[in-house]
Amino acid sequence: MSRPRFNRKDQAAVNTLRLLAIDMVETAGSGHPGLPLGAAPMAYVLWSRFLKHDPEDPLWPDRDRFILSPGHGSALLYAWLHLAGYGLSLEDLKAFRQWGSLTPGHPEYGHTPGVEATTGPLGHGFAMGVGLAVAERMLSQRFNRPRFTIFDHHVYALVSDGDLMEGVSAEAASLAGTLGLGRLIYVYDDNQMTIEGPTDLAFTEDVRARFSAYGWQVIVVTEGEDLGSIHQALENARAEHDRPSLVMIRTKLGAGSPKENTPQAHGEPLGPEAIRATRSFYGYPEDQSFTVDQRVYDHFKKLGQVHQKSRETWKALLADYETAFPAEAAELHRRLAGQKPEGWRDALPEFEKGGALATRSASGRILSALAGVLPELVGGSADLAPSNKTELPGSFSALNPGGRNLHFGVREEAMGAIANGLALAGAFRPFAATFLVFSDFLRPALRLSALMKLPVLFILTHDSVGVGEDGPTHQPVEHLAVLRAMPGVTVIRPADAYETLAAWRGALSRPGPTVLALSRQNLPVLHPDDFPALPEGAPRGGYILSEAAGGEPEAIVLATGSEVSLALAAQKLLGDRGGRRVRVVSLPSWEIFEEQPREYREEVLPPLLTRRLVVEAGLSLGWSRYAGAAGDILSIENYGVSAPAGRLFAELGFTPEHVAELIERL
Amino acid sequence: MSRPRFNRKDQAAVNTLRLLAIDMVETAGSGHPGLPLGAAPMAYVLWSRFLKHDPEDPLWPDRDRFILSPGHGSALLYAWLHLAGYGLSLEDLKAFRQWGSLTPGHPEYGHTPGVEATTGPLGHGFAMGVGLAVAERMLSQRFNRPRFTIFDHHVYALVSDGDLMEGVSAEAASLAGTLGLGRLIYVYDDNQMTIEGPTDLAFTEDVRARFSAYGWQVIVVTEGEDLGSIHQALENARAEHDRPSLVMIRTKLGAGSPKENTPQAHGEPLGPEAIRATRSFYGYPEDQSFTVDQRVYDHFKKLGQVHQKSRETWKALLADYETAFPAEAAELHRRLAGQKPEGWRDALPEFEKGGALATRSASGRILSALAGVLPELVGGSADLAPSNKTELPGSFSALNPGGRNLHFGVREEAMGAIANGLALAGAFRPFAATFLVFSDFLRPALRLSALMKLPVLFILTHDSVGVGEDGPTHQPVEHLAVLRAMPGVTVIRPADAYETLAAWRGALSRPGPTVLALSRQNLPVLHPDDFPALPEGAPRGGYILSEAAGGEPEAIVLATGSEVSLALAAQKLLGDRGGRRVRVVSLPSWEIFEEQPREYREEVLPPLLTRRLVVEAGLSLGWSRYAGAAGDILSIENYGVSAPAGRLFAELGFTPEHVAELIERL
Repeated sequence: MSRPRFNRKDQAAVNTLRLLAIDMVETAGSGHPGLPLGAAPMAYVLWSRFLKHDPEDPLWPDRDRFILSPGHGSALLYAWLHLAGYGLSLEDLKAFRQWGSLTPGHPEYGHTPGVEATTGPLGHGFAMGVGLAVAERMLSQRFNRPRFTIFDHHVYALVSDGDLMEGVSAEAASLAGTLGLGRLIYVYDDNQMTIEGPTDLAFTEDVRARFSAYGWQVIVVTEGEDLGSIHQALENARAEHDRPSLVMIRTKLGAGSPKENTPQAHGEPLGPEAIRATRSFYGYPEDQSFTVDQRVYDHFKKLGQVHQKSRETWKALLADYETAFPAEAAELHRRLAGQKPEGWRDALPEFEKGGALATRSASGRILSALAGVLPELVGGSADLAPSNKTELPGSFSALNPGGRNLHFGVREEAMGAIANGLALAGAFRPFAATFLVFSDFLRPALRLSALMKLPVLFILTHDSVGVGEDGPTHQPVEHLAVLRAMPGVTVIRPADAYETLAAWRGALSRPGPTVLALSRQNLPVLHPDDFPALPEGAPRGGYILSEAAGGEPEAIVLATGSEVSLALAAQKLLGDRGGRRVRVVSLPSWEIFEEQPREYREEVLPPLLTRRLVVEAGLSLGWSRYAGAAGDILSIENYGVSAPAGRLFAELGFTPEHVAELIERL
Repeated sequence: MSRPRFNRKDQAAVNTLRLLAIDMVETAGSGHPGLPLGAAPMAYVLWSRFLKHDPEDPLWPDRDRFILSPGHGSALLYAWLHLAGYGLSLEDLKAFRQWGSLTPGHPEYGHTPGVEATTGPLGHGFAMGVGLAVAERMLSQRFNRPRFTIFDHHVYALVSDGDLMEGVSAEAASLAGTLGLGRLIYVYDDNQMTIEGPTDLAFTEDVRARFSAYGWQVIVVTEGEDLGSIHQALENARAEHDRPSLVMIRTKLGAGSPKENTPQAHGEPLGPEAIRATRSFYGYPEDQSFTVDQRVYDHFKKLGQVHQKSRETWKALLADYETAFPAEAAELHRRLAGQKPEGWRDALPEFEKGGALATRSASGRILSALAGVLPELVGGSADLAPSNKTELPGSFSALNPGGRNLHFGVREEAMGAIANGLALAGAFRPFAATFLVFSDFLRPALRLSALMKLPVLFILTHDSVGVGEDGPTHQPVEHLAVLRAMPGVTVIRPADAYETLAAWRGALSRPGPTVLALSRQNLPVLHPDDFPALPEGAPRGGYILSEAAGGEPEAIVLATGSEVSLALAAQKLLGDRGGRRVRVVSLPSWEIFEEQPREYREEVLPPLLTRRLVVEAGLSLGWSRYAGAAGDILSIENYGVSAPAGRLFAELGFTPEHVAELIERL
């Protein structure tokens, strides 16, 4: 150990980060000064001596990743992005938390250059980092060749006690240990203070022992101001290749301020007096806000040159790789650009006419087929793969980094967050699967997918009370409605195998997260020979699946998923019985249908045709927009019951006879 | 250790549990035979030698609690409830998983006598047990007196690897360790097999070390068939008073069946051949289904007598207690009956006319006031108490079991589950608090509250983009809609301090869970002197807060929460400006309003008065039912932005001027 490694310039840099951060909070009149004051030293050592990055190209594919999991400490991150040259000006810092600024209250991915993930909901930054580390290993395995180490980066995060209390981090940490993700290095801002008071009010666990139990290397730094010790700890973390590392660093919340080590340092401006005292404590003039010594800028510039050079070396390497391994290079560029290979649709399967197949099974066959042509398709299930029909050949593990099937364990929330991390890595189309009813567990992750517009595919099977005997805890009722309610999420509930094909094609072409809601039970295959409107119609989110026979329709039945075949049966019944002319509209996706031109939508649902019945085995919530004031809705407004699915559907009125009767009543 | 403690009768009992369970699954044609076969020995030892219970009085307040956290193993529980005399007949067992039976696919609280909690979503049984153990300690502290040990029970659960993988159990386990809940004893069915394959695909952590790190006692039993070792381990668990205990018991999934130790044993009937082989393995005739030897019934009867006696002793003790401590006894009976004390409403505060107060602050004052008269009111926040305004005097801890303020830590999901556990204990009105946006984290718990109809109060503050600078990760937009969407949940969003009073009164009087959505920002106090309709109207969920001046109204503005004062301002603006006659309807709760008689609802919202504007700072989803076809809705359909609240509301059109303009346009 060769000390001193750090000098006065470094200390000035640390203190500048601190003071910029508290000035930002003060100017905004709200925010979180405590974390930046306490965690600036660890963040500085990490950013200045370890993080491989280049502000000239914030999206350099082999950069190290840094996530600020306690996103409320954003001022620290923005201060650094300013000093490191990411294009944030002092004016941007002064506009912290203001309308339209580049410096929102919590870091927002896609909004501020250098921000690798949207954080704020605690624990999710931690868990997304695990996804990024999985991505690093998968990319290394797929693309590196002897003498061509194209991928060789680390994933760092700063994490807080709040992150470690949240269940999602426990899930993700256990899986990261199982997978032996040696490229994952987290620094833990162990300030032993929470909003309600000292951490030990709620958190006396032995964090070191807990993470060791997960299979992590744990390193303790007892003095959070000691840059040298932090450096040594991070070097030790880097030296470990087979386990993730947690570097626990003892700090003081609000260090150097009069509110040091009090909950009051957490989430409100220090106030002018305390600001002055803090500046004075760090040896700066009391009244100079937003002041950066030119030497600090120069220092950061110099620090940046190391990585600028690494990126240039990497670019040269990639150029050689393009010559040596043109196919691999082409795949890499294609994936990074988010494009699909020519003719990928040719891989899609066909389904037998006259057959019956659960849409989860159709999805499984589609996934298997696509896996062959889309290496970016990786993912798995929260221990329900045989039921979700999402098994790919080859399990990803420490020993098999080429595997694409992720065994998430019974950990829905971390699954969603890890899928987000894979999507953030930029060369994947990740999928995550569980039962629809358990989407409640992954909702916080899905919301972040939507906020970040990440192309994550959520495969949610067993999509109604058709689950049957497992009963109300396993039967989704409100879930279609509450998933459709999330802005930026596309929900698709296909009616059969062919609509499932369209759903997959749509999901893979859309930005942002998509939910596929799939049936457990078999459904008749709506073969294009019999339903020629399907191939063109299904991708539009809603269409006339089966027009009324014998003239203008008198009524419309709208349905989704498993209820579409019920609607068709009722249509037939009414046609056979009394010559009633009923149109069946399949409406697999509200979001996609609403994107269609008005003329198209009014062709499918003519405004004057007000006799409409909606049939969906879930809440009616929101359906009135399609049913209209004169229409009716056959829905389920309460939790389900444990019973065989057939009995349950019959009891709840989901039979052709009852649907026909409701249409007659219109 | 005095072996043998168990004899052939015990083994026969264990095997009868096993065979009844697999017969049930076979007859149902679906279900989970694997867990009952492997876990029957541990369950039997626990039930027969430790569990203090009496089928004659399944709600005996000082009974031990048992939770089957992996609810899919329900057949085992039902087989025991049959043998132990809880009123389940063999016919009930044969009706396993059928419509209307007492034996649904997963255990359902309130449906089957002897079932202490609805389980199925993994991890929640684990976490609810923690709530029950908190309750035991609180009740002991409150009611026990020298020589009167009224409360003295344990909380047991059987937990699975799936439970331990879920984040909610990690959260709850860490808190249980912090709180030193010595009455909590969990047996872990460590069968090392999951649905996707061996547990180590996703779960290689050292469970023993992890739970030790949480502060638990961990005891390992290497042979899951060894009744004596299990007994000894449970005795050691009982001997530990200051820490929860985890008894890890190595078992085989599907033990004794041809599918032993394979994922196939988990979730489907064994099939007739394997059933025969399993019966034969355990030494029973191959073709006798649902057969119970009379000696097994006799054996269970004898086992039951021990506890019958304890209950009689307890009843006598309680009778003496009633004489010695009449006030305490009266409180106990009152709380167990779910009644409130006479005159409790007198404790409610009043609010200053002309003032302005955030509804979270009004709620805080109400909570403080009620805490004095309602000792059953206990709860806390997920580390946001100062923001949620939910601090009660006295923190509950190992050293201060009389404290009523629970510091849940940053653990929303476990908070919800622990609150459910407290409610299951039967003598509490628990509350749980966080930001509204983080209700996503506790949704699985809230769904279980609703399924079990538990009177849990969820205090969700910072209820709109009014959160301001913290930005989209902290601004709820879709949350009011998706909470209202949950069957059995009452959502109340009061407009001011007085509506908050009504909301609290309503919440404490209703069955099932209630959500209070409360503002961060100050709102004008709508004093009854100025708004005489409020005291009668607010408890009805919707009412005419301010009638149009000068004649029949021309239009209605409907609003909730913070938007009500906006509606009032617009009403005034229009009245002053052009003499427009606008009625303002405050609609704090859809669920309560829908319970009112039709005549009342039509008085508030006359069908012919179709010029209606809804104003809510959230999704429009579902509001069309009140806006009507001719109405308009001012809503927020996208995620928010980091900015000061005032700016944000202005940008989104939530100003009196814009509301007035929208009314004019009608």
